[in-house]
Amino acid sequence: MAAVSPAADPPAYPSTDRTVPTRARERASYDRELVHAVLDEGYVCHLGFVRDGAPVVLPTLYARSGERLYVHGSTGSRPLRGAGAGEGLPVCLTVTHVDGLVLAKSAFHHSVNYRSVVVHGIAYQVTDPEERARALDAIVEQAVPGRSADSRRANAKELAKTAVVRLDLREVSAKARTGGPNDEPEDLALPHWSGVVPVTRAYGDPVPADDLDPSVPLPDYLPRPRP
Amino acid sequence: MAAVSPAADPPAYPSTDRTVPTRARERASYDRELVHAVLDEGYVCHLGFVRDGAPVVLPTLYARSGERLYVHGSTGSRPLRGAGAGEGLPVCLTVTHVDGLVLAKSAFHHSVNYRSVVVHGIAYQVTDPEERARALDAIVEQAVPGRSADSRRANAKELAKTAVVRLDLREVSAKARTGGPNDEPEDLALPHWSGVVPVTRAYGDPVPADDLDPSVPLPDYLPRPRP
Repeated sequence: MAAVSPAADPPAYPSTDRTVPTRARERASYDRELVHAVLDEGYVCHLGFVRDGAPVVLPTLYARSGERLYVHGSTGSRPLRGAGAGEGLPVCLTVTHVDGLVLAKSAFHHSVNYRSVVVHGIAYQVTDPEERARALDAIVEQAVPGRSADSRRANAKELAKTAVVRLDLREVSAKARTGGPNDEPEDLALPHWSGVVPVTRAYGDPVPADDLDPSVPLPDYLPRPRP
Repeated sequence: MAAVSPAADPPAYPSTDRTVPTRARERASYDRELVHAVLDEGYVCHLGFVRDGAPVVLPTLYARSGERLYVHGSTGSRPLRGAGAGEGLPVCLTVTHVDGLVLAKSAFHHSVNYRSVVVHGIAYQVTDPEERARALDAIVEQAVPGRSADSRRANAKELAKTAVVRLDLREVSAKARTGGPNDEPEDLALPHWSGVVPVTRAYGDPVPADDLDPSVPLPDYLPRPRP
C-alpha cells in the first residue's frame, strides 16, 4: 500500500488585487520558497498599521514559523494592543534586503538591487501560552540561530509583560531586482563608470557584556573575532 | 550695525501625540541633528500609506534636502498617484539602521541596537520642474555621494516618466537603543555568553557592467576593490 502524503502547500501564494504591483510586475513573485528565503534571511521588519486614519510604520523583530509570522512587543505598544481587540488589526509587514547599488550611465537608470517581501493581513494576539512561548523562542532564533536553547527562557512574569501577534502568510508577494544597469544604447559611449556595488550585512567582533564573567566562552553560533 | 542672522531652526522637532511612543520613551528623541544624521546615513526607507482602509508598506529610495524628504517612483505607482491628487497623501516614512544584536542571559532581555527615524506627514507631488530635477539628483547623491555629477542627467522624456513626492520634516522622532544587555542581577551567574554582536553595512568590490568599456576607470567615490 502506498504511503499517503500529507497535502503539500501549493508552490505559490495566490495573487490578489493588492499583491499585484502597478509597476515593474516582472519583478514580482508569489513563489513560496522565494518568500520563505527572503523572510528567513532577515529578523527586522517594518510593520504598518492604521491609527486614526493615518499610516504608522515601525521597525520590529519578527520570526517565521511555517506559514505564520510572529511579532512581539510590550503589551502596552499600540499595534499589539490593537491586535488584541478581538477583531485583530489590519497590518502590512515588509522585509527588505538591499543587495547592491546599481550605477547606470544615466541618472534615470540608477537603481538598487534588492529582495523584499510584503505581507498583507490581519494580526491577532497569540493567547495560547504554549504558542506564545514557542513564538518568543522563534524570534530569538530568527536573529541568532542556536541562541534560544542557550539562554534562560522567559518566566511567567516576563511572559505576562510580552505580547505576541501572529500574521498568517496568505496574501504575500516578493519583489526582487538583480543584475547590472539597463542603460540606453545611445548612452553606452558616455565616459561614466557603470556597474553594481554589492551591499551586504556584516557582523563585527562580538563585544562581551561588562558584567560577563570572562571565563564564559564565546558560543559556536556567533562569529569568531578576527585575528 | 550688527548683521541680522537668519532665524535658525530650533534644535528639536516639537513632539506630538503620535511621535511620543507608548513604550521605551527614554529611547525617543526629537533632536534635529540626530534625526538628520540617521536619515543621512540611509537611502532606503519604508513608506507607509493607507489604501482602501488598509496599510501598505513599501521600500523605496529617498533623499533628505534640508527639512524636506524626497521619494521618487514611476508616475504610475500607487502612492505617487495618490500624492498627486491635490490634497496630498498621508504617509509615514521610516528609516532604520540595525547596529547590533544584543544577547542577554535571559531570552526576555534579548534586543537589537538600532537607530530609527519615523516621519509623519502629508506627501505632495513635486510639480516644479527645477525642484524635481534637484530632487532626482539628491536621490542619486543620497545613495552614492559624488555620483549625480558623474552621470547623464534625466532628459525631458525621462523626467515626464518620473514622479517625485516631497514630505516636510515637521512631525518627526528618532529612536535609538545602544549599549549592552540589561540583565537581571539574579541571572548574571548563568553560564550563557552575553554581549553585543555589532552589525554593519558592508560594500563589496564594484562589479563593472557587461557593456562597460574596460578603459573607463573606477571613480574615486566608489570603494576600491580589495587586493
